[in-house]
Amino acid sequence: MKNWKKNIRQVQPYTPGEQPDRPDIVKLNTNENPYPPSSSVEKALAEMDGSALRLYPDPAASGLVRAIADFYELDPSQVFVGVGSDDVLAMCFLTFFNSQKPVLFPDVTYSFYPVWADLFRIPFETPALDEDFCLRKEDYYRENGGIIFPNPNAPTGIAQPLPQIEEILQHNLDSIVIVDEAYVDFGAPSAIRLLERYENLVVVQTFSKSRSLAGMRIGYAFGSPELIRALNDVKYSFNSYTMNQAAIAAGIACLADALYWRRTLSLITQTREWTKARLSDLGFTVLDSQANFLFVSPPDKNAKDLYEALRERDIYVRYFAGPRTENYLRITIGTPLQMDRLFGALEDWLREGKREGLKKG
Amino acid sequence: MKNWKKNIRQVQPYTPGEQPDRPDIVKLNTNENPYPPSSSVEKALAEMDGSALRLYPDPAASGLVRAIADFYELDPSQVFVGVGSDDVLAMCFLTFFNSQKPVLFPDVTYSFYPVWADLFRIPFETPALDEDFCLRKEDYYRENGGIIFPNPNAPTGIAQPLPQIEEILQHNLDSIVIVDEAYVDFGAPSAIRLLERYENLVVVQTFSKSRSLAGMRIGYAFGSPELIRALNDVKYSFNSYTMNQAAIAAGIACLADALYWRRTLSLITQTREWTKARLSDLGFTVLDSQANFLFVSPPDKNAKDLYEALRERDIYVRYFAGPRTENYLRITIGTPLQMDRLFGALEDWLREGKREGLKKG
Repeated sequence: MKNWKKNIRQVQPYTPGEQPDRPDIVKLNTNENPYPPSSSVEKALAEMDGSALRLYPDPAASGLVRAIADFYELDPSQVFVGVGSDDVLAMCFLTFFNSQKPVLFPDVTYSFYPVWADLFRIPFETPALDEDFCLRKEDYYRENGGIIFPNPNAPTGIAQPLPQIEEILQHNLDSIVIVDEAYVDFGAPSAIRLLERYENLVVVQTFSKSRSLAGMRIGYAFGSPELIRALNDVKYSFNSYTMNQAAIAAGIACLADALYWRRTLSLITQTREWTKARLSDLGFTVLDSQANFLFVSPPDKNAKDLYEALRERDIYVRYFAGPRTENYLRITIGTPLQMDRLFGALEDWLREGKREGLKKG
Repeated sequence: MKNWKKNIRQVQPYTPGEQPDRPDIVKLNTNENPYPPSSSVEKALAEMDGSALRLYPDPAASGLVRAIADFYELDPSQVFVGVGSDDVLAMCFLTFFNSQKPVLFPDVTYSFYPVWADLFRIPFETPALDEDFCLRKEDYYRENGGIIFPNPNAPTGIAQPLPQIEEILQHNLDSIVIVDEAYVDFGAPSAIRLLERYENLVVVQTFSKSRSLAGMRIGYAFGSPELIRALNDVKYSFNSYTMNQAAIAAGIACLADALYWRRTLSLITQTREWTKARLSDLGFTVLDSQANFLFVSPPDKNAKDLYEALRERDIYVRYFAGPRTENYLRITIGTPLQMDRLFGALEDWLREGKREGLKKG
């Protein structure tokens, strides 16, 4: 091995869901919104002044920060923005988890957490969710170097009641606690209103899911002005200008059309509820999701078989190997039409399974 | 101090140049291009499909990577892209400088290098440029954990001859050597053609300067496929999708109009040359810049005074405190009209100085 290779950081990168670029597929694998963003976004991009692109964007992205603060009735000093919530979370790990004590997050959760911990060499422990995939708050009542969990959790979709989150905060006044609310708009209670009581709380949200803007990469965090200042200090030590002019313009335009946002949210939660019911009717185990996806196990628990069968029919869902998740698939809620195509495929697959079962029997 | 505060990373962030948002000022402080990008960029943004923004961008930004590779006649496996060259450089520090030995870079150089080193706790040493602000290659012939320098250097604008860069590479076959070519298009020789002989070489460039796209945040690195793979592994461990759809579209459109790019480059270098001559005529010391800025010292070396006098007239240039730079200002090359306004102010200031000198005398 050449000597210079020794200095290269060895990491096990996160694997994002496949992004096949074909219009005919049913893409239910990365929890994107099936509905386009408000037309105000396309309009904002079309109206951008090309000649202004020669200039750096506002390093503080103040226009976007202010729009987010206004929307959530907070002060701009409580808002941090980044290139998607992944960028925001990476900055949070780098900024807030600087202890020799282990950071705590659930064993079944967003699989990027251990990747960031490894990248920044942060020790961590992963208390197991209970057998129903619920977080046990007592597991977080011990010495730690910080806490992070999504609400609702991924890939389960299960939401945590707010009083439980507050209990975790009360038991951890010496730690920074991050609640990752990427999917919160689809039905979980937000921890935003706990911000005024807990200055060690960080709430992270994103434009990529409920706001239909995955393609523009906008995420944000709320916290006490002191925490947001620390995040910005680290950001300014990494890259002064993370948000390009297009992202700032698109984010502001998107927030302005709250009516459209609420309408698509309601469509998605409706579709989720009848999808849940219909999957149960087919014999699937369906966790009670408050997100824009369902975590489901087929009647014979042969999730990987189903994943591959769907893929052959150009329907992409997400399969996570591993002892606790291998019997499940994560299925994003699409349009009613996409879900119908999914159900057509599921029914075929179940029928074929029965036929083969009869043959064997 | 509350306990959770102890876990916050303490950093001394980089201070970007001011970004005052008023159309009437002469902004010569952040080395932006005075000419807008090719109109093809505005067109590409206007033609973006808003509904596609609901989907994540291609995590590999393959279209942009391919366009850059084609432009520079390299293979896509030799190209890494990021959110401006600052993002690319931050990723390089994180990926390549993982040794207990000190990383080497000049004492007078891009002031973000020590910030990244501190952020990632990388030891570093800063060999002094010689009295003419030139890099002494021999200073880099010693044990190190990696080497980085800009060519041309900032804020001096002085370019390093390619044979000297190759000598540094030859003496450092055990290290990763990064040549930061943010300003290379304005007249310095690129190290790109050394890539085929040195698999430990990384060359970093940007769309923010010569390509007039600071507002879109696009930077890139060239290196051996092995180095680029390592960079991408770290990128995928930080944020899977860094380049939003608008940046990818703008970058591709920008590269396609090479004729326009060459025309603006030639305008800027012409303006630089007569600005150099005119400043010398006024008694300024002017370093021989191959970049889109000049590093100059006024006749009486009272750079800070001049900086403030210009600022009062709404002309923004950059002043760097510190023993070696305090007698100098860094002035971005603007349009001929902007330079005329600068010269008007300079001549007034010199006249006033003389008058006061006479009074005192």
